[in-house]
Amino acid sequence: MRATVIHGARDVRVEQVPDPVIQHPTDAVVRVVAACVCGSDLWRYRGVEPTRQPTRIGHEYVGVVEEVGSQVTGVAVGDFVIAPFYVCDGTCVNCRNGVSTSCRNGGWWGSHDGPGSSADGGQGERVRAPLADGTLVVVPGGLPSDELLPSLLTLSDVMGTGHHAALQGGVREGSTVAVVGDGAVGLCAVLAARRLGASRVVAMSRHETRQALARTLGATDVVPERGDEGVARLKEMFDGVGPDVVLECVGTKESMDQALRSARPGGQVGFVGVPAGGPELPVRTMFNSNVGVRGGVAPVRGYIEELLPEVLDGRLDPGVVFDLELPLDEVAQAYAAMDERRATKVLLRP
Amino acid sequence: MRATVIHGARDVRVEQVPDPVIQHPTDAVVRVVAACVCGSDLWRYRGVEPTRQPTRIGHEYVGVVEEVGSQVTGVAVGDFVIAPFYVCDGTCVNCRNGVSTSCRNGGWWGSHDGPGSSADGGQGERVRAPLADGTLVVVPGGLPSDELLPSLLTLSDVMGTGHHAALQGGVREGSTVAVVGDGAVGLCAVLAARRLGASRVVAMSRHETRQALARTLGATDVVPERGDEGVARLKEMFDGVGPDVVLECVGTKESMDQALRSARPGGQVGFVGVPAGGPELPVRTMFNSNVGVRGGVAPVRGYIEELLPEVLDGRLDPGVVFDLELPLDEVAQAYAAMDERRATKVLLRP
Repeated sequence: MRATVIHGARDVRVEQVPDPVIQHPTDAVVRVVAACVCGSDLWRYRGVEPTRQPTRIGHEYVGVVEEVGSQVTGVAVGDFVIAPFYVCDGTCVNCRNGVSTSCRNGGWWGSHDGPGSSADGGQGERVRAPLADGTLVVVPGGLPSDELLPSLLTLSDVMGTGHHAALQGGVREGSTVAVVGDGAVGLCAVLAARRLGASRVVAMSRHETRQALARTLGATDVVPERGDEGVARLKEMFDGVGPDVVLECVGTKESMDQALRSARPGGQVGFVGVPAGGPELPVRTMFNSNVGVRGGVAPVRGYIEELLPEVLDGRLDPGVVFDLELPLDEVAQAYAAMDERRATKVLLRP
Repeated sequence: MRATVIHGARDVRVEQVPDPVIQHPTDAVVRVVAACVCGSDLWRYRGVEPTRQPTRIGHEYVGVVEEVGSQVTGVAVGDFVIAPFYVCDGTCVNCRNGVSTSCRNGGWWGSHDGPGSSADGGQGERVRAPLADGTLVVVPGGLPSDELLPSLLTLSDVMGTGHHAALQGGVREGSTVAVVGDGAVGLCAVLAARRLGASRVVAMSRHETRQALARTLGATDVVPERGDEGVARLKEMFDGVGPDVVLECVGTKESMDQALRSARPGGQVGFVGVPAGGPELPVRTMFNSNVGVRGGVAPVRGYIEELLPEVLDGRLDPGVVFDLELPLDEVAQAYAAMDERRATKVLLRP
């Protein structure tokens, strides 16, 4: 079968690889119906994170179960499933605490799975899904329509991650919110903040298409300024002190700095941008202003059940973040389009 | 009158200074009944924070109002009042948001007040209290008994600060909690965590007297280990992953590091230790574990009304943290006793 392999910076290829087979009794094999490229894949693509040897890549996909191991009980052949961007058992203490991204037996697509084998990437025709009962979520009703597919696919990562940012930022009824980052996660964070009752949501963006998309998703304001000017603009908009919550959806030192300085005293930064290059947080600034910081790798597996009904009945439409669809064979173009910001998020069809 | 002046590292003196007078119509003059030395005063005493010129010092006191300015309406001559460790107007947007430590017109004892004058320190016979209506809290019933006095005095800082740590750590009914730091604030944090319903509270302490005090205040466990060993011990005690909440009440790089590594994935660090030397927070560690960090300079003014009734009716007895009482004239001995950890907290009588 065909699957995507990253060889190094700006070098992703579709290659012939062995078909996946059940290796553990808790595995399933899933035929991928749609996958996508993540903003965090770009760290590898740009060489910010090194690729030491050719590796399967991709961690967001939906598909149809083709085979299950002897111990799998929650997922059956023919089920249409959403895979969160990681592998988890759903039963360990961290999973029970709602932090399935810290599953004690879990793993990562394209890296390793819980039982200790190397795990397939999601940008391919088929995937061996480890710990299938814990990891995969069945979508009722079988294969969805083409209209629903993109929104379902966002539940594997970006929508759940935006929701995590909003939850960790403490967004509630009436909160004022600014979102730093206008990628797919930032846009989903806008939607998530509105869904949780935010009265105002400011999208920080200087990109016209994304500004419009942010408004579609519920942004009440758009601020194109960045850095000191962006901070000053936000303070001016909110009582001279800034919004209650800032959602950091980029992961650079600059974006975190801007987020921390924008939140009002006593406010909160919810962060989900994968820290690139490890910027450290200025604890004295946090101490003086009582601005909290909370977030991280989003335990989206736990959010799928909550968000899925709203996607299925059309109340929630995060699928609009996909503005380009390509066949799997053109995966290199998909990465390039996202890298050059010509596309917000690319949907791949095997 | 007599008041304490710090001249440099390990050099605090009681000196003759001018009597305070009303300078602004929002001022009051308070005769100090009791004051104390704060752990954070020790940063100056030890020279960790430099003293560039002789300065009045002390920011925790209770006393009797002797005079009020023409615009003061909430405080009257003869009232017994608690002064929080800072000055605030109680009406600005930050005060209304519950962050009176970021009052837009506020100030700090021994430094400057809101209207822009230099502010008296609290370790003296009398204090000019600026923005009296916003700053001071009247204790009903007038001059309290000697038994009640210490607990009332803790509301000016350490008890409210411990409460802030617990609130910012998100302690709730059934939380498991570890407290890093066995000074007066750490001990008050133990009490505050229990008050908020924590099912287990571990005091991290290797100091016998303080271990006993922690148990008196509600600690269910005591762990003397620190650093890697302390972290391992806490993980072992709580499902192999650590407690829900860690309260950081010291302010060093080591204590914050220990706190961050001790909390379970998805847990929270509530921090109130004044960062000494500005340790920065490892954002990648926080990201990977979803451990949040929230806290800072505690807006205790807002907590006094909540905690005061429980102190008055004896349900809450944080005053036990005072284990030494000295006359103001022996203030140098008070600093030395705390510096050498011979005393947890010293009460001064002018």
